[in-house]
Amino acid sequence: MKVVIVGGVAGGMSAATRLRRLRESAEIVVLERGDHVSFANCGLPYYLGGVIQKREALLLQTPESLAERFRLDVRVRHEVVALDPVGRSVTVRDLDSGREYVESFDELVLSTGAAAIVPPLPGVERALVLRDVADVDRVAEALGGARSAVVVGAGFIGVEMAENLVRRQVSTTVVERGTQVLAPMDVEMAAPVAAEMREHGVRLELGAELTRVDADSVTLSDRRVIPADLVVMAIGVRPESALAREAGLEIGSGGGIVVDERLRTSAPHIYAVGDVVEKRDAVSGQSMLVPLANAANRQGRLVADVIAGLPAIDPPAQATAILGVFDLTAATTGWSEKRLRAAGRPFRVLHSHPFAHAGYYPDARAMSVKLLVDPATDEILGAQAVGGDGVDKRIDVLATAMAGGIPASRLMDLELAYAPQFGSAKDPVNMLGYMADNLRTGAIRTVQWHEIDDMIATGAHAVDVRSPEEFAAGSIPGARNLPLDELRDRAGEIPAGPVLVFCQVGQRGNTATRLLTQLGRDAINLDGGYRTWRDATAAVR
Amino acid sequence: MKVVIVGGVAGGMSAATRLRRLRESAEIVVLERGDHVSFANCGLPYYLGGVIQKREALLLQTPESLAERFRLDVRVRHEVVALDPVGRSVTVRDLDSGREYVESFDELVLSTGAAAIVPPLPGVERALVLRDVADVDRVAEALGGARSAVVVGAGFIGVEMAENLVRRQVSTTVVERGTQVLAPMDVEMAAPVAAEMREHGVRLELGAELTRVDADSVTLSDRRVIPADLVVMAIGVRPESALAREAGLEIGSGGGIVVDERLRTSAPHIYAVGDVVEKRDAVSGQSMLVPLANAANRQGRLVADVIAGLPAIDPPAQATAILGVFDLTAATTGWSEKRLRAAGRPFRVLHSHPFAHAGYYPDARAMSVKLLVDPATDEILGAQAVGGDGVDKRIDVLATAMAGGIPASRLMDLELAYAPQFGSAKDPVNMLGYMADNLRTGAIRTVQWHEIDDMIATGAHAVDVRSPEEFAAGSIPGARNLPLDELRDRAGEIPAGPVLVFCQVGQRGNTATRLLTQLGRDAINLDGGYRTWRDATAAVR
Repeated sequence: MKVVIVGGVAGGMSAATRLRRLRESAEIVVLERGDHVSFANCGLPYYLGGVIQKREALLLQTPESLAERFRLDVRVRHEVVALDPVGRSVTVRDLDSGREYVESFDELVLSTGAAAIVPPLPGVERALVLRDVADVDRVAEALGGARSAVVVGAGFIGVEMAENLVRRQVSTTVVERGTQVLAPMDVEMAAPVAAEMREHGVRLELGAELTRVDADSVTLSDRRVIPADLVVMAIGVRPESALAREAGLEIGSGGGIVVDERLRTSAPHIYAVGDVVEKRDAVSGQSMLVPLANAANRQGRLVADVIAGLPAIDPPAQATAILGVFDLTAATTGWSEKRLRAAGRPFRVLHSHPFAHAGYYPDARAMSVKLLVDPATDEILGAQAVGGDGVDKRIDVLATAMAGGIPASRLMDLELAYAPQFGSAKDPVNMLGYMADNLRTGAIRTVQWHEIDDMIATGAHAVDVRSPEEFAAGSIPGARNLPLDELRDRAGEIPAGPVLVFCQVGQRGNTATRLLTQLGRDAINLDGGYRTWRDATAAVR
Repeated sequence: MKVVIVGGVAGGMSAATRLRRLRESAEIVVLERGDHVSFANCGLPYYLGGVIQKREALLLQTPESLAERFRLDVRVRHEVVALDPVGRSVTVRDLDSGREYVESFDELVLSTGAAAIVPPLPGVERALVLRDVADVDRVAEALGGARSAVVVGAGFIGVEMAENLVRRQVSTTVVERGTQVLAPMDVEMAAPVAAEMREHGVRLELGAELTRVDADSVTLSDRRVIPADLVVMAIGVRPESALAREAGLEIGSGGGIVVDERLRTSAPHIYAVGDVVEKRDAVSGQSMLVPLANAANRQGRLVADVIAGLPAIDPPAQATAILGVFDLTAATTGWSEKRLRAAGRPFRVLHSHPFAHAGYYPDARAMSVKLLVDPATDEILGAQAVGGDGVDKRIDVLATAMAGGIPASRLMDLELAYAPQFGSAKDPVNMLGYMADNLRTGAIRTVQWHEIDDMIATGAHAVDVRSPEEFAAGSIPGARNLPLDELRDRAGEIPAGPVLVFCQVGQRGNTATRLLTQLGRDAINLDGGYRTWRDATAAVR
């Protein structure tokens, strides 16, 4: 059996090494266009920022090490320029000699990845991207002497890039066409990331677009000129599917190669994995692009199993992702509220702001967590979190619960490891379960931050149940202060009509809402409390 | 409705506050024998160590604050001395006045907790325990001027206590009857904890028992005398079920109150929660004692739902627990290998030693992870981990996977949040899935650390596939060195017969075993590699 693998990074190299472990006798050829195989893509920004100090640390394997250990025939700087699915061969160009040759295969794996999108702007050829080691070398060179930089795009990579430019003392502006950073997250969950960036000196231009790139600056659509010794494009990636497309393989609506659950393309004996394929979404079952390293690595290993005849099935994708930026962590899994809304899918929202560990143990820091739930089935549709330590843990637990089909309410039952430095006796994840259960059973009703203006305009009385000190430090316009501990006696002071209750994070509001409801009032709690409202409105105003 | 709750800490107070939110009209009386309600049990050792500096931080609520917010009638220093299940009343003694009175109830919740076990030794009355705030005050007083301490028992609390005594510069000895610390964990997973304790100056006497306590020392069964200005008993707890027992309620074989899935005792209108009850084990379905704060809090809230007529069901217990000790974290969920072995239940074992985050990102530290799997069903039976950052996350993910019924092999599919500072593209949890799948499909066979002496004795050839440098630094006696990268060419040097392959952590061994198997050899990989073997044998020798 001769297996040719096109692309030698995450997916391709996982496929090659797994296949060798399964089939010692197979001939395995890996064709990689770039200079390097199996490098640490996700480490590139951190090398530029000096967090990873040695360039060698990025290079996890070499063709030589892979030949030695796995008897792989790895050819770097060899680009596949044509694919003949019927004749089962690829045409390969040796980029150094210019020589072209034909390589036949019994089975072919396409792991060509995705390329950074570069919009056709005047002067854009000066802009750099960050996808491989050659890119990182170019950026590193441009960084020498650079005092200013513009990063275009405030997605995960753009934000990481900005953080690392600041680490290098480069005055950095991030230009983002959208109205928030981190498009996969909802506005109120992304807002703390924007605030953190600004606090660390990043200039953030939201709702802004580039019109041209000049020698040492860029121009925005409002004609402002931003100094930019260095311009980095990080507006997204598109699947490198041209080879497959030209060979007549089926391409999806997102531009990725269409594969089935066994990673088979529309052509026999041709498989595809990683950023170049369209994946099946875990929530909707529909095709989507998920250019994430974990999925690529998983599919790489899996395609080797498929080729070896093992009964492997590619699971649907939740698109779990995480970002560290300065002292903040933001993470997401599944669908966001805006995506659910755009798809017209019903959902229930929960916000909370729990401490990462017991409040009485030192350095307890609050995080913000959001859960999206199917109101009909109690299924978890997505989760987001932003904060410090423990954000990664909670998103991983929620991603696992989602994968395991644990209903939102049953998050209360999870037995998570508790000691005061690691969590709380009622862990933040358990608390989400309690909240979801209260909503499911109707024990509590909640309203979202973007709904309260309408409520107040139509006559609801906003009651801030926090302390007078908290109230004085800032509250929702039009609210009266009635501290929770006095509410039982003073509820009569609230005029007739619906009552909008809120506190700082939603928990005292929950108690107050339950109390008022039992006193016969039409009360509703502001989900996530003043804090979610403040994060969200600060972001949109 | 009048509800009386006996015990005002984790379970009792969760019940009281939840019940108030559900039933504003209920009369709720909380009777607490001690001086304080709702204190931070799990924080007590850290207050003694000075990590938590203010005593007030331990006191989460007072009777006054609970009356104000939740209209609870909380009576501290009121002990329930008798229970009449038929007449539905309790006899209460006011510990200050000595007065006794009868309190009737419609519904009763017993949340009396568990008491520290103190063995009947000469002089033992000088020994202190650590269960409540009064205990902590006594220990704090005894600590003034103490230069030496003996902690009896190396369970979670004993180890935490020892760590915090060292923080106070007290020369500390831990005396443990068993042959390892942390009995819920397996010997090779507990061994790094013992090493960490010793490295930080704790004297650890395993397999040792106290015979007497004297004025400033204790005597061990081998007649050695250990200086001990302070003696702390932490050998375990027993349910405080005397009140229930005397009232004729059904008591289980472990001494805890028997309750059903709705936390009902054998007597109508009487419920019990927390450390005093026997819980249903998630793996076996049998009764067991799980004196953990998370379970107590969860049951407390749940019993309020039951009393309020909501359809709440108490889930089975996995006994997830965690310990931080100096720079190490150890955690467990589900069953251990020794427990499975003792129960005669078939199981499969996996060890790995992954980095907590990408190896190329700074400060990547290896942890040890162990997974126990049902060989017939691929069900996860238990997991343990020991290491630094990220141990808590992996155990929580595994506990969640277990709760969600995710089979061990499918851990490979979990989409966990990956950026290089948080994990790996193939997360440690995914790797466990790959390993479990290899075992399940027979792609690999492994042998455990305690099985290799027999293998070698019966003629297997031990081959260390690490580098010559690693081999020279220490290997398994009798092994020959044949580095993985040379194995393909030099496999013929291994004499005929079975081959026991090992590397440092098991991964190169996996590749080598696959290679040898495909070359027609009878090869088996040492699970967890040299590192598991070394941890385990250092612990038992």
